[in-house]
Parts: sequence; C-alpha cells; structure tokens
Amino acid sequence: MPTGHVFIGTSLDGFVARTDGSLDWLILPEHKDEDHGYAAFIQDIDAIVMGRGSYEAVLAFDAWPYDKPVLVLSRQLAGTEPPDALRGKVSFADLTPSAAMEHLGRKGATRVYVDGGQIVQAFLRDGLIADMVISRVPVLIGEGRSLFGPLARDVKLRHERTVTFPSGLVQSHYSLRA
Amino acid sequence: MPTGHVFIGTSLDGFVARTDGSLDWLILPEHKDEDHGYAAFIQDIDAIVMGRGSYEAVLAFDAWPYDKPVLVLSRQLAGTEPPDALRGKVSFADLTPSAAMEHLGRKGATRVYVDGGQIVQAFLRDGLIADMVISRVPVLIGEGRSLFGPLARDVKLRHERTVTFPSGLVQSHYSLRA
Repeated sequence: MPTGHVFIGTSLDGFVARTDGSLDWLILPEHKDEDHGYAAFIQDIDAIVMGRGSYEAVLAFDAWPYDKPVLVLSRQLAGTEPPDALRGKVSFADLTPSAAMEHLGRKGATRVYVDGGQIVQAFLRDGLIADMVISRVPVLIGEGRSLFGPLARDVKLRHERTVTFPSGLVQSHYSLRA
Repeated sequence: MPTGHVFIGTSLDGFVARTDGSLDWLILPEHKDEDHGYAAFIQDIDAIVMGRGSYEAVLAFDAWPYDKPVLVLSRQLAGTEPPDALRGKVSFADLTPSAAMEHLGRKGATRVYVDGGQIVQAFLRDGLIADMVISRVPVLIGEGRSLFGPLARDVKLRHERTVTFPSGLVQSHYSLRA
C-alpha cells in the first residue's frame, strides 16, 4: 500500500478555498515567486489523488500543472472520459480511500500526494496519511472550504519542523503517529 | 482606547475547546512545564476581557489564576454579583466590544487581554485586536469551539515571528495591519 502525503496551503482560519472554490487569497502578489518547496515535494511523488472540487479548480488553470498521473475520486465523473488533452494524465474513479491506494499501489506508486480538503479528511479518517506539510497564509477569510473536518477520535501528530517565509507564510511539517 | 491582545492555544484544526468546553487536549502531559511565554505576556496586560464560556471554564480551576481585573461580557451575568471570593477581581457587564474597551480605558487600562473564541471573534470583527499569539498544539480534535468565525471582509495579518517547542507546539505572533 502506498503512503499518503499532504502539501497544502490554508488561510490562518483553516480554509483551503473560499466557498466558491477561489484561491485568490492564497498568493500574496508581492511574494509570488517565493519558493515553498512544492517542486521538491512533488518530485518524490508517484501519483496524485484529489476530489472533483480540486480537479475542477485545476482545470481552470492556463495549463495542466501535473506531470504525474492524477486519480480523481468522484462518483459523478467515474465512468466518464477526461478531456482529450488529459488522456493518459487523468483518470476518474469512484473508490474508497483504501481502494484508491490499493489501485495506485498495483500501478507501482509508493508515495501518493493527497490533495483537497474533502479528500484529505477522508484519507485522514482512514489512517492513510503519513505526513502533512501545512502552509498558513497570514489572512483570515472568514468562511470557505475547511482543510479539516469531523473525526471519530483525536489524531495526534508529531511536529517535525516549521519554516517561515518573508511573505509571512508559516509552513509546518507534521508526521502522523502510528 | 486600549489595545486588544490575544494569547491563545488551539488544536491544529483550529479549536480552542471541545464542544463541551474541555481543554484536556491542550496540555501534553510529558511537557506540562514547558514555558510558552504566558507569564511575560500577562505582565504587560492591565485588564482581561472574556465571555461567559471562558469564565466558567476558569471557575472550574482549583484557584482563580488572574491577578488583573477581569471583565466578563455576558448578557446573562450582567447585573449579578460574582462569588464572594472574586469580589473586586471580576465584574460582569453586557457591553459591545467598543463599549467594553472604552469602559476599561476609563479605568486606566492601556493593554487588554482578549480571551475566548467568541469574544476574540467579536473584537476582531470590530477592529479592536492589535496582535495575536496563536499556539498550535499538534493534535486534531475534529470538532469544538472555533477560534475564528465569519467576518465581513478578509483580515490580513503581519507575521512577526514563530517559535517552536519540544512538545511540538508552534507559536506564531501576528500583528493586525491597519
């Protein structure tokens, strides 16, 4: 079974997107070239799993940003084909987190990037996340889509390290205790 | 008008207490003597303002922990008297955040500690917070009382510094931009 890894930005009040999905608050224009380590993170990743919300947000970008296979977990999209330009890059499936990980494992993945609030929550609940890099942007947006959600029990994490950036972004690395 | 200052602990998912008010998750037993700077913070404070929820949580402690005057903002308690042991230490009032600050200013306060999720939210919405020290405990509790809540508009903060502790607590200092 591959391990799940999270690398995500949130507002100081814990949102990964506004209610309408927008990420305008995430980039501080005067610091848009600040390197938060994403390139190094993604280099060690074999596959990406996300929900429909994240997929549609990424589709709206100018160009498809991933050079790793992306699995979109969505009841609605499962059984449909991705746009021609994404053939071979994206697949859709309606799978539980465990089934998705087993599926990716059979395809040779050992490290999976788990992205998007709903998907991170589901993988956390099922104990499939090995570590999380959470980057907090110094802004309160008041409401939106939460990174975290209800849990059956407390989840303790081990703080590995925290790095701060000139933009005010505070990036903490956590691993999940067994 | 005095300035408002926040010094608060939250879970990694942004809660200041469980739904029933309990704080059991906040103290990591093996690090209970770790100094997070509270004593230095409180020394520069002239008065404390909190809501009924925080007041009742503090009442349950073995001893009253504050040597500064405490103003409890509560419609329910306003007009009643505090317990004899707290006479002269605690007062109750039903005031807006601004009126509470003016009241404390007239009594000579210049720096006010604003405590508790609901009260911090109300003072933030009214622009009465000058800075915040947020200490994140490395645990997800899933649900509870949130530090932050809805806002009329985004609130940008300036990250001043972040300190980490052996317990895994990550403490960030923010000031509010004008």
